[in-house]
Amino acid sequence: MISEKMRPFLANNSAIRMMFEEGKKMAELYGADKVYDFSLGNPNVPAPQRVNQAMKDILDEEDPLFVHGYMSNAGYPEVREAIAENLNQRFGTKFAGRNLIMTVGAGSGLNVALKTLLDPGDEVITFAPYFLEYRAYVTNYDGVLVTVEPDQETFQINREAFRAKITAKTKAVIINNPNNPTGVVYSEETIRALAAILEEKQKAYGHAIYLISDEPYRELVFDGATVPFVTEYYDNTIVVYSYSKSLSLPGERIGYVLIPDEVEESAMTIDAATIANRISGCVNAPSLVQLAVGRCVDCQADLAFYDRNRKTLYEGLTELGFTCVRPQGAFYLWMKVPTADGTDASAAEAVFVSAAKKYHILIVPGSSFACPGYVRLAYCVSYETIVNSLPEFAKLSQEFIVKTC
Amino acid sequence: MISEKMRPFLANNSAIRMMFEEGKKMAELYGADKVYDFSLGNPNVPAPQRVNQAMKDILDEEDPLFVHGYMSNAGYPEVREAIAENLNQRFGTKFAGRNLIMTVGAGSGLNVALKTLLDPGDEVITFAPYFLEYRAYVTNYDGVLVTVEPDQETFQINREAFRAKITAKTKAVIINNPNNPTGVVYSEETIRALAAILEEKQKAYGHAIYLISDEPYRELVFDGATVPFVTEYYDNTIVVYSYSKSLSLPGERIGYVLIPDEVEESAMTIDAATIANRISGCVNAPSLVQLAVGRCVDCQADLAFYDRNRKTLYEGLTELGFTCVRPQGAFYLWMKVPTADGTDASAAEAVFVSAAKKYHILIVPGSSFACPGYVRLAYCVSYETIVNSLPEFAKLSQEFIVKTC
Repeated sequence: MISEKMRPFLANNSAIRMMFEEGKKMAELYGADKVYDFSLGNPNVPAPQRVNQAMKDILDEEDPLFVHGYMSNAGYPEVREAIAENLNQRFGTKFAGRNLIMTVGAGSGLNVALKTLLDPGDEVITFAPYFLEYRAYVTNYDGVLVTVEPDQETFQINREAFRAKITAKTKAVIINNPNNPTGVVYSEETIRALAAILEEKQKAYGHAIYLISDEPYRELVFDGATVPFVTEYYDNTIVVYSYSKSLSLPGERIGYVLIPDEVEESAMTIDAATIANRISGCVNAPSLVQLAVGRCVDCQADLAFYDRNRKTLYEGLTELGFTCVRPQGAFYLWMKVPTADGTDASAAEAVFVSAAKKYHILIVPGSSFACPGYVRLAYCVSYETIVNSLPEFAKLSQEFIVKTC
Repeated sequence: MISEKMRPFLANNSAIRMMFEEGKKMAELYGADKVYDFSLGNPNVPAPQRVNQAMKDILDEEDPLFVHGYMSNAGYPEVREAIAENLNQRFGTKFAGRNLIMTVGAGSGLNVALKTLLDPGDEVITFAPYFLEYRAYVTNYDGVLVTVEPDQETFQINREAFRAKITAKTKAVIINNPNNPTGVVYSEETIRALAAILEEKQKAYGHAIYLISDEPYRELVFDGATVPFVTEYYDNTIVVYSYSKSLSLPGERIGYVLIPDEVEESAMTIDAATIANRISGCVNAPSLVQLAVGRCVDCQADLAFYDRNRKTLYEGLTELGFTCVRPQGAFYLWMKVPTADGTDASAAEAVFVSAAKKYHILIVPGSSFACPGYVRLAYCVSYETIVNSLPEFAKLSQEFIVKTC
């Protein structure tokens, strides 16, 4: 007699997570080196040594009552200030510690932001393909997720489709930049256009529309791409960040919500978000790792590792005849299912994903991101996995591209 | 333009947390040794050295990808098994790792349990005085919190009042044992009576009524008191646990939800709770501290320290003429406001709490636990705070007891 609301989730558990569990089973069965598991965004680059050292130093140097005790629900003031200062140096912003609320990763950060903002029936817009948990998060507060279909040429934002989806009930818009699952980085032009549409619609409807910028991949960019800092383009922006990817700490659950002074009624919004952090049951972000990231604000994971994977995989797959979006950010590669054109994309995708499993290749179907006809490959795996998977992808290519040509 | 649902919380922020912030300010103003802050359940006994050592060992010995990476949403299997095994040894139970879901503390554990069970309008019963966050947690899922008035003689459960509050809409009952704020341990007789009433009502209404046993203070008992392990008395029991108090790790946010096989549709309930952990945004309990508690299942904080505080405070206050419930568990002392009888208890309490501040004594009013006319003293403070506070309490006694006699 569990909740009625939970039942659909049981029936339709996260395909990504299911594949993660399946990957673990296959690794036991065939050996980990014979399984090419591209399913989960679990970083393969270890956390920088400085993070571990910071944790050990804190454990050695600081009073355990301070290290493991309660702090203010928004986090340790000195950690929040260190992060604000670092952002200001990098982006020319003027944040103070008070603008930040430390959270249990970005997942919890998004929930804090949505709990702060949403009343039942409020609409939240996001852009397909998108991280499917967004729907669960919005539904947690009885909001309605509205999705904008993609521009399948560029996978930048489909501006006219976006404009058409905004209504009087639109309370917030979620973007994810760099993007999971496409690996695309939204350009400054895209962000400017998005901001202009939001300004226009705020004026038209006479109330704030919040832009929630989910940025766990901010530092994971390649080819010299830059990720616009959205608060500089649109006042009612709330940034949600996580150290899961940039410092390879996904299990530690550490991130923050950033609410600039420019946000409407910002002091009240910050207070409400702090309370949301508390009453969600999280209370505060985990303390030791919170102190550790405060000492490592200028650290980052080994980008060169991901970059080599990215190039090898993208070039390898392209040579085999697959059509891929060239990834510029995050650690995902977005590939078209060769047989998806002109047929039922969902069916073609299911056949393709299933065929890949024959070759011990685990990839996530695009329908897991509300965009059937594609697959996502998380290339945050060992380089050997990339290299050794390519002959298996060649077999898949034989089956799906050569044969169907 | 924050959520309408959040507005009442802003107006009525946690009195305990506000006092915590006030205490920090007073400490800056008058010096920490001149402020007697009994407001927050922030343990003053440091985490056992073994916990810090376990953390450092794990950081030194284990692969950082394992230590800081994603694991199954329910937690590391080996950690869950170690905890199950430890419970089985201590309580003669037969849990397996699968019965446990590691959570971001008990706060998040309660939210996971409630999210798993509640549909809008479902009633959840708890017993005054109670930890006021219960109301926020139940409201998170549009449930209705129903409270049972206390038996002010014993502060055990008021059985007849409880029976009268159960309706066809009752989905769950929350108990907190040992109890915050009273320091009372519910006896085996109380638990048996509670179980009998629940069995009777389950039969009468033809559906499960879940008993959620919130047990962060399980190991903090004195005078040889024992805390009945509730799963042994009632099948539909879900235990929520935290290491915040037993291992002095409140900032680290680590605990678990235990769903025994005897719970109705237990496999589905465990799956749903695991999904609830994920979609709440927590994803999983923090990884390093999760591994550390797995290595420290037989550790506990220094009980003798709390026991000395308990005795000194209880005896000191009783000698001064205050009426206190003799605490047997947790680290709280529940004291009657001397002037609360026969007048407006809330008003008397407010005057008393405010007068205490003159002497730099910070105590939480009973109305913060839905039981006006009392105050809670968290004695998880330094022994010096206890000893030095007693002359100040003597002044309070002069003002409220001697003068009013």
